[in-house]
Amino acid sequence: MKRILVKNLYNEVNNEVCIKGWVHKIRKLSKVSFLILRDRTGLIQCVVDNNVDIKDIKLESVIEIVGKVVEGKNKISNVEIQVEELRVISKVQEELPIEVNKEELDVNLETILDHRVLSLRHEKINSIFKIQSIIAQGFREYLINEGFTEMFTPKIVSEGAEGGTAIFKVKYFEREAYLAQSPQFYKQMMVGAGYERVFEIAHVYRAEEHNTSRHLNEYVSMDLEMGFIEDEREIMKLETGILKHIMLKLTNECKDLLDTCHIELPKIKETIPSITFSQAINILEKEYGKLCEEGDLDPQGEKLICKYAEEKLGSEFLFITDYPRKKRPMYTMPKDKEFTHSFDLLFRGLEITTGGQRIHEHSMLKENMIYKGLNPDNFTAYMEVFKYGMPPHGGLAIGLERLTSQILGLKNVREASLFPRDRTRILP
Amino acid sequence: MKRILVKNLYNEVNNEVCIKGWVHKIRKLSKVSFLILRDRTGLIQCVVDNNVDIKDIKLESVIEIVGKVVEGKNKISNVEIQVEELRVISKVQEELPIEVNKEELDVNLETILDHRVLSLRHEKINSIFKIQSIIAQGFREYLINEGFTEMFTPKIVSEGAEGGTAIFKVKYFEREAYLAQSPQFYKQMMVGAGYERVFEIAHVYRAEEHNTSRHLNEYVSMDLEMGFIEDEREIMKLETGILKHIMLKLTNECKDLLDTCHIELPKIKETIPSITFSQAINILEKEYGKLCEEGDLDPQGEKLICKYAEEKLGSEFLFITDYPRKKRPMYTMPKDKEFTHSFDLLFRGLEITTGGQRIHEHSMLKENMIYKGLNPDNFTAYMEVFKYGMPPHGGLAIGLERLTSQILGLKNVREASLFPRDRTRILP
Repeated sequence: MKRILVKNLYNEVNNEVCIKGWVHKIRKLSKVSFLILRDRTGLIQCVVDNNVDIKDIKLESVIEIVGKVVEGKNKISNVEIQVEELRVISKVQEELPIEVNKEELDVNLETILDHRVLSLRHEKINSIFKIQSIIAQGFREYLINEGFTEMFTPKIVSEGAEGGTAIFKVKYFEREAYLAQSPQFYKQMMVGAGYERVFEIAHVYRAEEHNTSRHLNEYVSMDLEMGFIEDEREIMKLETGILKHIMLKLTNECKDLLDTCHIELPKIKETIPSITFSQAINILEKEYGKLCEEGDLDPQGEKLICKYAEEKLGSEFLFITDYPRKKRPMYTMPKDKEFTHSFDLLFRGLEITTGGQRIHEHSMLKENMIYKGLNPDNFTAYMEVFKYGMPPHGGLAIGLERLTSQILGLKNVREASLFPRDRTRILP
Repeated sequence: MKRILVKNLYNEVNNEVCIKGWVHKIRKLSKVSFLILRDRTGLIQCVVDNNVDIKDIKLESVIEIVGKVVEGKNKISNVEIQVEELRVISKVQEELPIEVNKEELDVNLETILDHRVLSLRHEKINSIFKIQSIIAQGFREYLINEGFTEMFTPKIVSEGAEGGTAIFKVKYFEREAYLAQSPQFYKQMMVGAGYERVFEIAHVYRAEEHNTSRHLNEYVSMDLEMGFIEDEREIMKLETGILKHIMLKLTNECKDLLDTCHIELPKIKETIPSITFSQAINILEKEYGKLCEEGDLDPQGEKLICKYAEEKLGSEFLFITDYPRKKRPMYTMPKDKEFTHSFDLLFRGLEITTGGQRIHEHSMLKENMIYKGLNPDNFTAYMEVFKYGMPPHGGLAIGLERLTSQILGLKNVREASLFPRDRTRILP
């Protein structure tokens, strides 16, 4: 007998059907029992006569039920199942370490992550990753429509793209290699290879020692790069379009999931407000008495400037532009001596994007490497493209877990990573 | 002035336009010169009067042209540009190491890969990766439509999934970790977490020492896993649907690119023929006098059995099923004592997919680990899910570079990898 998904049962009133899924709840009364079955599409109440023996069935077992669909108002749905046969497909063998059928999963994050497979069965936690998959698809859809080509670039690399020491080493046969901190070099190379517009959604690796609620050592980066731009403003405009498309897609495809998580999506203005880095520093000092360390917005600074943007500029998103050269990587296009053609996008108190225009002239790139204390000889493979005709270009990267986390109001970016990797965790 | 893409110029006859791109070819005559400009959408002939000085413009420079679109039959298009202004955006500074404007790029693979950014500008090589991106999108589209959820699982892992020693080590802070050989454990865990149907397109890592035309040490794996199946036949049926959808999408969206590469797409039968592993071994011996080492089809065996499938079964695709237990990983569902519920898919002489039903019972999994000489204590995080209700399930993985390579008739799988990683290459 063919399995019917829970979401399609309303179509089967008075029919005999077969359903399969996990035992979500059992409530025993004197004459009947109510068993709630869960599949990937939802919950359904099943009425079990006492002539069917269910006393050995534990919560979260996988079962198959054959029964008749009848109309019946209950809290979950307008239909229910009168059980005729019930078969256990896979038994639960041990006491469940967490209770996944509660409205709120009242355990700490470490326990949630230790028992990831079980915690993912909880409705609200399950929804996070269905929503995340829609976000990623929205990013792709929008860019494909704008003439971008999807690419797959190596994560085992011989050069670090972002500088610094935060790079994982890999033993690559006789040699040492690294895990890519970003696809930066490759996406620029692909622009120069004639694709002009490219994107990639893939893992990147940062061997940062600190354990914070905002960082992961392995995360999913939604990267794009675009040729023949005037300056970074075009990239910012493109990002505005991407985010609008993602919100529209979430509205259209995830209404139930968003309701489950009590989420209101952010509104995005026609043009997202934008202030320069220097303005941001001034505003923080004047409005909030907050002093920032030279050339950087710390987490508290990001929160306060977002508060300012929401209250004074009416936007949950804020672009900050014109970052100082000292604080941006060597490939960033300078803007006069001190600043750069670069931007960050902050959303609800957190940086979710770094982007900007890149240097496309070989000699300028070489000079900027030296300015940043780097040796151009270490970047020969990357630099080749700049000798053979490279258009002006720029791009950005959006952290998928951060964007998910901020949309859903999660407290820790780990909650938006299926199996997070941090300073101490590589399991499960 | 707004840039117009080459593909849209037919719409602009008699208008003044701005186009940007690379200098593909220059032919100088006594009174005029012909310059062919290339952008991401195609080639266009530009007619340059001798009053515009182009003697210093080298091939592959990036230029901007303002001019009038006129009708004019030439080999490339029905329109051409009468150049009014020409500006060099980015100069070529060195002699080009390869000639990218030839019909065939007559250099060896090492040179192609050494100068990857330039070789990618060659029309035929460029097309490979546009086609590859459509293949990946076709895989996703079909599965999303079938109720699958896209997932992003970690590539830094603490346990090897595929067994053997072919695993790269990463220094993970104070500890040792590995690069994932496949998302196998995670996709099974996600089925058990209630998503039931999941897929991922991401890199996997195999530290295999041999350098062959069929292997990469880092490749893109298109993975899926599906719960509540009867047996591996459902997965084979799903794969047939995926491949048909990919071919249809290529036909609809890549006709020009396929013509450029002189490619005829394979026809896929309603049901792809299927033979057991034992039958394959017998056929090879009887028909071709080919003896296989116990329990394996070697590359020559794969080629011959595909020849057989094409000639006798009328199909370029062939499923081989019922592989011996000895040759399949520990998570494979056994079928009696000797064989398994597993399959490979061969296409034009090469294995492009491995798949099958997996074990979903904790005790059977434990026994099978011991049978395979593994210690179950090393897999505790993976095994947890099997204690708490796990449906019958199965899945497969398609190598993206191999599928691309076989569709396009490439000789070496490296040709279908943007920046391949092999025994000796980690650059560019």
